[in-house]
Amino acid sequence: RSKVKVTAIPGDGIGPEVMQATQQVLAAAGAQVEWEEALAGAEAFRKGIAAGAPQETLDSIARNGVALKGPLETPVGYGEKSANVTLRKVFEMYGNVRPVRELPGIRTPFSGRGIDFVVVRENVEDVYAGIEHMQTPGVAQCLKIITEAGCERIVRLAAAVAEAEGRKKVTVSTKANIMKLTEGMLKRVGEQVLKDYPSLTHEHMIVDNCAHQMVIRPEQFDVTVMTNMNGDILSDLAAGLVGGLGVAPSANLGDEAAMFEAVHGSAPQIAGKGIANPTALLLSSLMMLRHIGDFATARRIEHALYVTLEEGKDLTGDIARDGEGVPTAAFVDRIIANL
Amino acid sequence: RSKVKVTAIPGDGIGPEVMQATQQVLAAAGAQVEWEEALAGAEAFRKGIAAGAPQETLDSIARNGVALKGPLETPVGYGEKSANVTLRKVFEMYGNVRPVRELPGIRTPFSGRGIDFVVVRENVEDVYAGIEHMQTPGVAQCLKIITEAGCERIVRLAAAVAEAEGRKKVTVSTKANIMKLTEGMLKRVGEQVLKDYPSLTHEHMIVDNCAHQMVIRPEQFDVTVMTNMNGDILSDLAAGLVGGLGVAPSANLGDEAAMFEAVHGSAPQIAGKGIANPTALLLSSLMMLRHIGDFATARRIEHALYVTLEEGKDLTGDIARDGEGVPTAAFVDRIIANL
Ligand SMILES: CC(C)[C@H](C(=O)O)[C@@H](O)C(=O)O
Ligand SMILES: CC(C)[C@H](C(=O)O)[C@@H](O)C(=O)O
Repeated sequence: RSKVKVTAIPGDGIGPEVMQATQQVLAAAGAQVEWEEALAGAEAFRKGIAAGAPQETLDSIARNGVALKGPLETPVGYGEKSANVTLRKVFEMYGNVRPVRELPGIRTPFSGRGIDFVVVRENVEDVYAGIEHMQTPGVAQCLKIITEAGCERIVRLAAAVAEAEGRKKVTVSTKANIMKLTEGMLKRVGEQVLKDYPSLTHEHMIVDNCAHQMVIRPEQFDVTVMTNMNGDILSDLAAGLVGGLGVAPSANLGDEAAMFEAVHGSAPQIAGKGIANPTALLLSSLMMLRHIGDFATARRIEHALYVTLEEGKDLTGDIARDGEGVPTAAFVDRIIANL
Repeated sequence: RSKVKVTAIPGDGIGPEVMQATQQVLAAAGAQVEWEEALAGAEAFRKGIAAGAPQETLDSIARNGVALKGPLETPVGYGEKSANVTLRKVFEMYGNVRPVRELPGIRTPFSGRGIDFVVVRENVEDVYAGIEHMQTPGVAQCLKIITEAGCERIVRLAAAVAEAEGRKKVTVSTKANIMKLTEGMLKRVGEQVLKDYPSLTHEHMIVDNCAHQMVIRPEQFDVTVMTNMNGDILSDLAAGLVGGLGVAPSANLGDEAAMFEAVHGSAPQIAGKGIANPTALLLSSLMMLRHIGDFATARRIEHALYVTLEEGKDLTGDIARDGEGVPTAAFVDRIIANL
């Protein structure tokens, strides 16, 4: 197989460290990826680039159609919009896919219950359209916009994810009881569109109840689909069930580009110390490998990572069982040794 | 002390059963309450009352200033708005207060960690204003409205709750990084207003992170305050941490009236069977007793309930340790015996 070019955006804080760690593991596993490094985040803002990403970065993503991205900061006082949101919007990456799966060796209050579901979050509409203004002094308005086309493509994406992964049920979660037109649109389109997928069970769940059920009985979920803001909150909740953002991968999918990213922050307090946990970005890179069709390498790395987590030796401080963490490099070496 | 008149709205489904159970316990404990029963919910809608509550009910609440309420349904096809939301709005009950506290005998994945915080949710603004329309076919808009006055009073309420309960920290949780004007208003007003409460620590937390932190490390929270929709989701999440909506009390507070309610649904599938768990409404009634100044009776009943839950005998099916539930009446008898 020939090499696939991928835009690599190390990002801010611990970004460069976890990117390097991820690239090392992929290289060791023989992934046929050629990285094209690109800038985004704090440095871009400081250079006066309001979008938080220079044109070369956008060009690189457009050319390659695939990117792997570390955390990006929006420094206080710079820019109106987060660079993360801009990148999603520029490439109309309308689907944010976040797998929520219990990991071996990562103990949580829910361990052993076999949590394994996917949150599919609409990624470009809703209050993220950024239409806000002051109606009168002291009264602010923000427009929540939901379109039928947007609902249809996100529901179809959720169904495609379900089918590709052999899953059985799609839960459309909305606040349609309060917002009959906007949230109700996703509910209605969901009912309509999912008729095209007779092998999938379909249910609707009010979003506050869904948040409640994720805590009470998370095993019940398979694929969930939500509007942007609700999905933002519930996907972070869901990540918490299986170990937190430090081990939570995600994909932003559109018709022209796909960007895989760790959802955690840039953790400035530990940046540069060589102790960051690269698991979230590594897992995101496995989603990327599968996206470009390299299932075998993804499976090998996943296996090595799982063995490493299960053995519980040489883990970074945030997931070390005895609290004694090792440097990122030692964790990476252990994963590579387990390949 | 002379009797305090309270409007009792039994509501739908299991509502009348849990209301009766609650009233029995309060009577047995000698609570000086005189109930004025009032209609709201499905029956009102079916009678053609679009608000879901007839004028007599509104008059009763206005007169008494205090109400205890069971779950209300909005039958499909009736009314544009939930009767719950209408009641909150009519009486401008701007504060939704939901304590989140580990209960004795209610085992959850978080048991023993001492979860004890309060979610203070703004209750009348935000997307609940109900301003929604179709911009063009296929494009729906909903207006999210946040006012400075609304932010100020909800933050002051959160601070008052914190002070009254001897709590130390108020966490203002918003999505100000995306909605700088609307969500940002609560953040800004929070920073300003909380300066008036030097004994309270103040922090801000992005709402998706807050949802994540509630699952990862819920012990860190003391009092949290949020806009309406975020608070709707996060308070349900939070209830899930300590046993779910079946045991979760809540208060709707305004300047002219206060309404205490169980947040759970009407559970039509078990309605009329005499097996519903009245704990959520009973705990709500204790918030009500404290609101009308009867701290002693509230404390006595709380103690009897806690002893009953801890003993683990005669519990309803949803919380019974061995899965063998007793009828509501037997649970009530046990609580009364423990008074
Ligand atoms: C950083 C922030 C703008 C972003 C969002 O709100 O979408 C983040 O929370 C996420 O979920 O990726
Ligand atoms: C029933 C529904 C309208 C209500 C709300 O959204 O506020 C409920 O979820 C609640 O939290 O009390």
